[in-house]
Amino acid sequence: MTQTHHVEHHFTAGQSVRDVVIGMSDGLTVPFALAAGLTGAIASSHIVITAGLAEIAAGSIAMGLGGYLAARSDAEHYGSELERERLEVVEKPEVEKREVAEVFVAYGLTIEEAAPVVEALSRRPEAWVDFMMKFELGLEKPEPHRALQSALTIAGAYVVGGLVPLAPYMIEGNARAALPFSAAVTLVALFIFGFQTTLIGSIAAAAAYLIASAIS
Amino acid sequence: MTQTHHVEHHFTAGQSVRDVVIGMSDGLTVPFALAAGLTGAIASSHIVITAGLAEIAAGSIAMGLGGYLAARSDAEHYGSELERERLEVVEKPEVEKREVAEVFVAYGLTIEEAAPVVEALSRRPEAWVDFMMKFELGLEKPEPHRALQSALTIAGAYVVGGLVPLAPYMIEGNARAALPFSAAVTLVALFIFGFQTTLIGSIAAAAAYLIASAIS
Repeated sequence: MTQTHHVEHHFTAGQSVRDVVIGMSDGLTVPFALAAGLTGAIASSHIVITAGLAEIAAGSIAMGLGGYLAARSDAEHYGSELERERLEVVEKPEVEKREVAEVFVAYGLTIEEAAPVVEALSRRPEAWVDFMMKFELGLEKPEPHRALQSALTIAGAYVVGGLVPLAPYMIEGNARAALPFSAAVTLVALFIFGFQTTLIGSIAAAAAYLIASAIS
Repeated sequence: MTQTHHVEHHFTAGQSVRDVVIGMSDGLTVPFALAAGLTGAIASSHIVITAGLAEIAAGSIAMGLGGYLAARSDAEHYGSELERERLEVVEKPEVEKREVAEVFVAYGLTIEEAAPVVEALSRRPEAWVDFMMKFELGLEKPEPHRALQSALTIAGAYVVGGLVPLAPYMIEGNARAALPFSAAVTLVALFIFGFQTTLIGSIAAAAAYLIASAIS
C-alpha cells in the first residue's frame, strides 16, 4: 500500500513537470513561429506584438481550459463506470466473476488457476470493483484537483513561454531587426527542453515564415 | 482473447475520433481567436489572413509533430522497461514474484490467496512480463503506426478547422466587416463539437480581442 502511494506521488510530480514542458514548449513554438511568419510579411513590430499577445491569450486558454474540460469528462466517465460496476457486482456477481477470470485467461492462465483470486476478490466488493475498474476497463482513478492544477500549470507555462519570442519585438520597433534576436532567445529556451522541441519549433517557424512570405 | 482484441479495436477507432476532435477544436479556436483579436487592432483582412495562415502552419505542426514525438518517447520508454522486466524475471524471479503478489495485496488479498496466480504466471515468462508491464508499471503496449496516424489526423484536422474562421476574411477585404461572419461560421462549427468547445472558443476569442484592442 505504501509503495502504491509512493508511486502515485512520484507520478504526480512527474505530471507537473510534464505539464510545464507541454505548455512552455507550445508557448515558445507557436507565438515564435507566428511572429517569425508575420515578420516575413509585415515590418511593424507593433502588429507582430498585437498578434503574438492575442495568440498567447487564445492558445493558453484553449490548451488550459481544453485540458481541464477533457480531464473533467474523464473523471465523469470514471464515476459513471464505477457506479455501473458497483451495481453489477451486486446484481450479476457470476458474470463479474467470469470477467475477472477472463483478465487472467488473457495472460494464458486457466480458469482453475485464476479461481482462488476470483473467489478472494468476490468476498471484498470494494476491492473487487476497484480491480474491475483498473484491470478490466483500464481506467485510472482520477486525482481530485489534478485537472485544475494541470490546466493552470499548462496555461501559465504557455504564457511565460510565449513572452520569450515576443520580448525582442517589444524592445525593437522594426520587426525585421527584432527577428534574429527573437530567434536566438527562443532557440536557447527551446534547447533547454532538448532537441525534439527545438526541431518542432524550427520546422513550425520555417513553415509559418514561408507561408506568410508567399501570400504577401 | 477475442474480446481483448475487440476492445483494442474499438479503442483505436475511438482514438481517431478523439484526434479529430482535439485537432479541429483547437484549429477552430486559436486561429479564430487570433483573427478576432487582430480585427480589434487592424483593419486589413490581408494581415489577418497572413497571421491566421502562419498560425495554422505553426499550430498544426506543433500539435502534430509534438504529439508524434511524445508518443515515440512513450514507445521507447515501453521498450526499455520491457527489456528490464524480461531480464528481471530471469535474474530475480523471487523479487518479481513478490511484486506480482503485491499487486493483489494492494486489493486486500492475502499472499496465500494470490499465490496460485503468482505461481501460474511464473511458469509463463512471456505472459508474466506482459502482466508486470500493465499491472505493476501501468504501461500499455504502444500500437505500431498509431503515433504517426494520430499526428497526421490531429494536424490535418487543425488545418481544416483553422480555415473555417479565416474563410470570411478571404472574401471580405475589410476585417471589421468580415469578423461577424467569421464568428458565425466558427460558432456553428464549434457547436457541432458541443457546448464545451464553444465555451472555450468564445472565452479564448474574447480574451484575444480584449488584449489586442487594449494594446493598439
